[in-house]
Amino acid sequence: MNYQYQDYQLVQDHIVQTPVISNADLDKELKAQLFFKCENLQCTGSFKYRGAMYALLKLDAGSRAKGVVTVSSGNHGAALARAGQTLGIQVTVIVPKDINPVKLNNIQQYSAEIIFADSGMQGRQEALAQFFSCQQALFIPPYNHHDIVFGQASSAYELIEQQPDLDYLIVPIGGGGLASGSILAAQTFNSRLKVVGAEPANADDAFQSMLTGKLIEHNNPDTVCDGLKASLGDLTFPIIRDGIEDIMLVSEQDIIAAMKYLHQKLKMLIEPSSAIVYAAVLKHKQRFENKKVGLILSGGNLDLEKFYSDC
Amino acid sequence: MNYQYQDYQLVQDHIVQTPVISNADLDKELKAQLFFKCENLQCTGSFKYRGAMYALLKLDAGSRAKGVVTVSSGNHGAALARAGQTLGIQVTVIVPKDINPVKLNNIQQYSAEIIFADSGMQGRQEALAQFFSCQQALFIPPYNHHDIVFGQASSAYELIEQQPDLDYLIVPIGGGGLASGSILAAQTFNSRLKVVGAEPANADDAFQSMLTGKLIEHNNPDTVCDGLKASLGDLTFPIIRDGIEDIMLVSEQDIIAAMKYLHQKLKMLIEPSSAIVYAAVLKHKQRFENKKVGLILSGGNLDLEKFYSDC
Repeated sequence: MNYQYQDYQLVQDHIVQTPVISNADLDKELKAQLFFKCENLQCTGSFKYRGAMYALLKLDAGSRAKGVVTVSSGNHGAALARAGQTLGIQVTVIVPKDINPVKLNNIQQYSAEIIFADSGMQGRQEALAQFFSCQQALFIPPYNHHDIVFGQASSAYELIEQQPDLDYLIVPIGGGGLASGSILAAQTFNSRLKVVGAEPANADDAFQSMLTGKLIEHNNPDTVCDGLKASLGDLTFPIIRDGIEDIMLVSEQDIIAAMKYLHQKLKMLIEPSSAIVYAAVLKHKQRFENKKVGLILSGGNLDLEKFYSDC
Repeated sequence: MNYQYQDYQLVQDHIVQTPVISNADLDKELKAQLFFKCENLQCTGSFKYRGAMYALLKLDAGSRAKGVVTVSSGNHGAALARAGQTLGIQVTVIVPKDINPVKLNNIQQYSAEIIFADSGMQGRQEALAQFFSCQQALFIPPYNHHDIVFGQASSAYELIEQQPDLDYLIVPIGGGGLASGSILAAQTFNSRLKVVGAEPANADDAFQSMLTGKLIEHNNPDTVCDGLKASLGDLTFPIIRDGIEDIMLVSEQDIIAAMKYLHQKLKMLIEPSSAIVYAAVLKHKQRFENKKVGLILSGGNLDLEKFYSDC
């Protein structure tokens, strides 16, 4: 797959060109130059809006009229709902019955249709099947989809434009949409840029897949990174296998510490699934010494009161 | 006093040109266009760095060699320490004995000398007197000082450049350094811009001073806005009296609600002393309808764990 400037142009006027933030104290501590790409400041508070918007903009008029459906209780659900609302496309989101009210509200505020399904993969599949038996909407999955990957690529593309001389780019790995998109953008626009993935040690399916050379799936792993529970798909796995420099595993404890530290230092809300990129750099400090390192802060959707009473 | 472009040029290369953030959801709710000037992303996490840097840059070589001293347990102390570290000027900060360890660490990390004083105004004055009996350092107060006010003016100056057609500018009022600086910048660079102050109802010395026409001081008022406990000084009061459009009082409850809401919506850390500007706009919604409103988010220094377990 070949990511080109016209792919960026498709979404350019529909997304926030997110700022890149540096912090002299962090640079000093790490003896490196860090460039944080703030997708927490993206529309709907995460990079997922880029992929959702790209996927909907690619639809022809007939498909737009039929509407779209997805399965997501998190950032992809909210992003697709909002992109649909903006473009006038009906969006249905299938969510688990026990969804947290903050997340439900994030989706509902963008006037999406909600269908409650039993928890777990099977419950969702049943709900999807039932939905499709009476509707003709198109299914837009959260990451294992060409257009989603090409939409997510726009973040790394912008960062490469904003900071052309990066040595490394660190991205979180969940289902692999952001990681694959970043690899594709780097291949076209900065071929010496090394893309490194950061993955929770408790949800290390991508790491295991790389190790064994075949796609390994984990079912609902236990990690504070709710955005990184998904496993790679058959589209994202080969892109990552062939294009990634390394995958770094990070403990839950280090992820939480990084998140709290970035709150205090960067003055921004960063969800655990994003803070993991900084935790990875901190853990492998020597490797990044004197390097220019881009880090995608993938999102900032977080129930602060719950987080700070739990952790 | 007349704020000019060369006053901005003095600090320009030493400070962060902070970004301006908009949010479509907030604009829709308020039927206005809001432009948030992010001083939480300033060096040391608050606008105070602007004034501290301006004041130190104005010193001649002789004064620089003698060092400076201030009394502040908060953002001004950390800002002056950091500015001094950058310019190679010795900084001493007098802090109360019972200072919170997070704040102490904020100051100490910039290698300032610390002197612990008994709490309250008298304890600080004694410590200052003792200090001056053996040292020749210059005292740099937190707000009631020409150079501090001129430094703080740089934030409003940048915002006027970034968004030239603003109708209103909302700033928090504590000692009045930021408010006075903003008024002076508006007078020179956008004379139709109306500057409005937001002040905690629990610390309404500026409001009372405006009402009575004379400078009224409050001693350690009880508000969650620790940056807004100070009273106006004899330099800042007349500038505010003659130049401010209005002062809006805000309850503690509304300040806390605004802070939590901005965390969720803007994905940024904003201390209560900053969130007050949004609370003021929300309370006087009709007045700002269809207007372009700038809001200075003055800082993001906050002990999150303490805040979310207390409030």
